[in-house]
Amino acid sequence: MRAVDIIAKKRDGRALTRDEIDFFVQGFTRGAITDYQAAAWAMAVYLRGMNSTETTALTLSMAHSGTVLDLSSIAPRVLDKHSSGGVGDKTTLVVAPLVASLGLPIGKMSGRGLGFSGGTLDKLESIPGFRADLSTAEFLAQLKGRGIVVSGPTHDLAPADGKLYALRDVTATVSCLPLIASSIMSKKIAAGAQIIMLDVKVGRGAFMKTEKDATALAKLMVKIGKGIGRKVGAVISDMNQPLGNAVGNAVEVIEALETLKGRGPQDFVGHCLQIAAQLLLLAQVAPNESDARAKLGAALAEGRALQKFGEWIEGQGGTRRVIDDYSILPHASIIEEVLAPRDGFIAGINAEQVGLTVVDLGGGRAKKEDTVDRAVGVVFKHKVGERVARAEPLFTLHANDRAKFDAAKARLLAAYEFRQRAPAPLKLIHKVIR
Amino acid sequence: MRAVDIIAKKRDGRALTRDEIDFFVQGFTRGAITDYQAAAWAMAVYLRGMNSTETTALTLSMAHSGTVLDLSSIAPRVLDKHSSGGVGDKTTLVVAPLVASLGLPIGKMSGRGLGFSGGTLDKLESIPGFRADLSTAEFLAQLKGRGIVVSGPTHDLAPADGKLYALRDVTATVSCLPLIASSIMSKKIAAGAQIIMLDVKVGRGAFMKTEKDATALAKLMVKIGKGIGRKVGAVISDMNQPLGNAVGNAVEVIEALETLKGRGPQDFVGHCLQIAAQLLLLAQVAPNESDARAKLGAALAEGRALQKFGEWIEGQGGTRRVIDDYSILPHASIIEEVLAPRDGFIAGINAEQVGLTVVDLGGGRAKKEDTVDRAVGVVFKHKVGERVARAEPLFTLHANDRAKFDAAKARLLAAYEFRQRAPAPLKLIHKVIR
Repeated sequence: MRAVDIIAKKRDGRALTRDEIDFFVQGFTRGAITDYQAAAWAMAVYLRGMNSTETTALTLSMAHSGTVLDLSSIAPRVLDKHSSGGVGDKTTLVVAPLVASLGLPIGKMSGRGLGFSGGTLDKLESIPGFRADLSTAEFLAQLKGRGIVVSGPTHDLAPADGKLYALRDVTATVSCLPLIASSIMSKKIAAGAQIIMLDVKVGRGAFMKTEKDATALAKLMVKIGKGIGRKVGAVISDMNQPLGNAVGNAVEVIEALETLKGRGPQDFVGHCLQIAAQLLLLAQVAPNESDARAKLGAALAEGRALQKFGEWIEGQGGTRRVIDDYSILPHASIIEEVLAPRDGFIAGINAEQVGLTVVDLGGGRAKKEDTVDRAVGVVFKHKVGERVARAEPLFTLHANDRAKFDAAKARLLAAYEFRQRAPAPLKLIHKVIR
Repeated sequence: MRAVDIIAKKRDGRALTRDEIDFFVQGFTRGAITDYQAAAWAMAVYLRGMNSTETTALTLSMAHSGTVLDLSSIAPRVLDKHSSGGVGDKTTLVVAPLVASLGLPIGKMSGRGLGFSGGTLDKLESIPGFRADLSTAEFLAQLKGRGIVVSGPTHDLAPADGKLYALRDVTATVSCLPLIASSIMSKKIAAGAQIIMLDVKVGRGAFMKTEKDATALAKLMVKIGKGIGRKVGAVISDMNQPLGNAVGNAVEVIEALETLKGRGPQDFVGHCLQIAAQLLLLAQVAPNESDARAKLGAALAEGRALQKFGEWIEGQGGTRRVIDDYSILPHASIIEEVLAPRDGFIAGINAEQVGLTVVDLGGGRAKKEDTVDRAVGVVFKHKVGERVARAEPLFTLHANDRAKFDAAKARLLAAYEFRQRAPAPLKLIHKVIR
């Protein structure tokens, strides 16, 4: 088998066999197949596509390019959830302890923010002492001991995917359905969970801009996962406006804790319950959605989810006291309210612009190497559809630099769309795929 | 400007501007744009195409990635001819001195054989002392002094093309019309000739397998050349069977010399006269083709072309005595006739198989690094369409190894197609494009 023949076959629009895909992926991982051959291949895949059989083979091959965790000695069924990335998406901070508090073990390898999209690990690291760099042994021990763990990917988790992703980033081959789906699913498969709930975001603050693309991605990932014998479901959720009110790192931890205390913003609470309920259904611990929601409601109301949050954070070296004392979180030197420039209904808050504003403030990454200021961010007072009066507080901005504050204020105000009439409400969940 | 944006633009099927193409080509040449970015770009070009404006820009940019020779101080119009590569193609060895003997300066940078296709320089180097590695100064001096020079490309001739071609070879992006056309034409432009005759081969022993592809390539190259202000014409010539009777290096030099002495095989003589006549028409030194052919016929009959061959070879260090004494050429230890296995008409001699057989004998290159045995080869006794009787001599095989002789004999016999009835004759020239 020769790499150039495999590239030519895909270039000509023919389906690759499992052996050909594995030869290419494993050869690329160990350096026998060069970066330039992989780049030409990726462009051929981008323009010629892959069917779901090929995409499944690619997923499995990338998953098996490194260690594939076997969690069966810890629990027969470990849960995982994955978001395709968005703005203000602190869902894991609520759903993970909520589900774990019902006795369902959750073991998740998560990521960091890049571009407009925030990262769960960056948020968690706002909590003093919290460690997101667990070794595999520590990951397994935390999962076994506390029934909940969220950490960064281990060094040998699907190395082929890491290598291929870096290449795609600089060769204009990122936005390709089979490559996106196999990238996400290879890491999920390697991380070992048997039950996986996918949260595919759609809209201006998401990587998928249309419901059609998001649905295609979600269906493909569900098909891949099921084909490999995992239980997989997906929701298509809206990311035209930020999720919840807080966007930033420490401010999102506070919003997550408020949610676990029963005081979360309505949209965010609804989103978390939807994801968590689907996980319960996938795990077959609830006969139907209303029963699942009842169980989740009880866990929240009785404080069990909050309790689990504390156990989790403590197990990963963090300060449990954060639950009752937000002042131990990093906070910004400038925290000021910004007022509405006019009367009217809020018809839009461009989520992508909000995400990029937080990057400008220092709270995210333009490049992978950037360091993150966990104190900065924005907390909105209103959601799309609400009416505001001129000079009423519109949002609170947290910054550590006056010039950056001013620039962020202007950029955020420009991200608003006001109208005289009430706009059609934005959907929260577009679709559930099982 | 960013490389990744240029790749994305081509990926999406949009035409690149001259500035974008130049940014990419010059960046790639000096290493600022990586091999993997160029590979992804080449695959995007392969699958999305380029219009003739883009292809012309690519040609010019590659030509100007190194030195572009200005030959105007030597002669107002220097001639060049180029073959797209074939089997038994010793045309330059005849056409160059023939045309030069009429006072038209010919300055050509030529190539070496690879795969089934032989190379003019390998043939010329059969002649003891002949140097194909002239410096630019030596190239210019020989052109000025003798009016004829054929040498290898100088180190800095269109370096972008050399780099891109090496990459295309291993990324399945070779067989792409705009990339082939710009590769050939960039070298022709950089080598400085004002009048360029292109000989695009078509058939089993050519890179272009169909007349449609060959015509498209020829038309595109003519369009590029004219757009840049050069006088360019093309012929589409047949390469289903080898050209002439001899395939190999020393054996082809002998055939070329026999042709210059008026004793060449009919098809090869016809081919050379066609190319040479078109050159005369392009150079406007003949009012029409019959006048051009009369001039060429006289130069051959009066021995002027042969005389010019001697001046040429001597000027480049070779032994002029080769004209009268073929024994100074390398010759093989085994030279044996192979007999026809049956009666019948020869309906085909697969040129690609013949070319590859000569490679197997050691007379060509499977890889660029291979050394070439200039003594080996094959000389056919019959062309397609001729009738042979069983046990009549079919071809003479020149080998330096008995096992290779036996393998070559079997492979050549298998390359023949015999029929009971006379087959339709093969065309020599399919088309002339001006």
